[in-house]
Amino acid sequence: MKEIRSIAALAGRFSALPGVGKKTALRYAYAVIDMTEEEVEAFCSALRDVKSSVRLCSVCGNFTDSEVCDICKTRKADKICVVAYPKDVDAIEKSGAFDGVYHVLHGTLSPMDNRTPDDLNIKSLMARLGDASEVIIATNPDVEGEATAVYLARLIKPFGIPVTRIAQGISMGSELEYADAVTISQALGRRTAL
Amino acid sequence: MKEIRSIAALAGRFSALPGVGKKTALRYAYAVIDMTEEEVEAFCSALRDVKSSVRLCSVCGNFTDSEVCDICKTRKADKICVVAYPKDVDAIEKSGAFDGVYHVLHGTLSPMDNRTPDDLNIKSLMARLGDASEVIIATNPDVEGEATAVYLARLIKPFGIPVTRIAQGISMGSELEYADAVTISQALGRRTAL
Repeated sequence: MKEIRSIAALAGRFSALPGVGKKTALRYAYAVIDMTEEEVEAFCSALRDVKSSVRLCSVCGNFTDSEVCDICKTRKADKICVVAYPKDVDAIEKSGAFDGVYHVLHGTLSPMDNRTPDDLNIKSLMARLGDASEVIIATNPDVEGEATAVYLARLIKPFGIPVTRIAQGISMGSELEYADAVTISQALGRRTAL
Repeated sequence: MKEIRSIAALAGRFSALPGVGKKTALRYAYAVIDMTEEEVEAFCSALRDVKSSVRLCSVCGNFTDSEVCDICKTRKADKICVVAYPKDVDAIEKSGAFDGVYHVLHGTLSPMDNRTPDDLNIKSLMARLGDASEVIIATNPDVEGEATAVYLARLIKPFGIPVTRIAQGISMGSELEYADAVTISQALGRRTAL
């Protein structure tokens, strides 16, 4: 069967989204056929709105629709939590366990992918260290996240500000049986007194 | 953190797509922020194109961008394969095992959801039976698919045209161990001579 050009084109657009394969993209495209014209127009406006209204907070680099984001506007900037991506801010905010401010690097160091410190939002982090009493590095516990954490710690420590790293170990609710070897050895190495 | 209005709005649009939850929708919305303006415009055009160009084939009811679809235009209409949805046509075409024409019902009978024969594309099926030497019912092997198959068979048989149903049993490459009880009992009941 010859594919219908417009459906194939839309599926191609959908497959540019993260984690969307050919089959899923086609399924999404079929769903659009079932939408009303108003819904399709609203979809278009929503796409454009995001592109035109979202920018980066001039202080922390997180997504915002104003000059400075709501978190930077309203919270004390003594504890700065450094994350790789805006979605990590959402994850930590959802936990409700942190009431300080964030700094979004927009990436991690990766010699493999040619991402050097100059490609990350690090300069503006150094500029706001004046008010900080602690910098928490919350990059992912993978090779690049670790490398970024070590790099930042070396950079910040000369300022006399404590730099900490989020704890690594067995996730709550997970089972030892299914944990990978590195996680288990980390959990053992970082064991705490009861 | 107060959500950014435009990101939340776009995520809401994405979550209208099949199988997309809140978390995935937000991930898609973030991906749109990283697109160029040209990409977003192309996405919009693709959405609109599908809505404006795709319609139903006047013969078989499948999606097409002309009056009659390519399959109906080019193939012999002696074998008609009846399916519930356009995506089922794609699945069968991909198998390469069928060279006849299709008829898309756009649904299955479901007293639970108040879907009666009048809601399905059945009238136009009856109108094209003249050329048919066989009607193959390829609805899914679930309660609604079976009910629809039985209903159509009763409707078509008086015309003296053989009505067949796709075989049910253990899928190729799957393991008995993991097959559900109904599938196994069907596979046993419909066993064939070797």
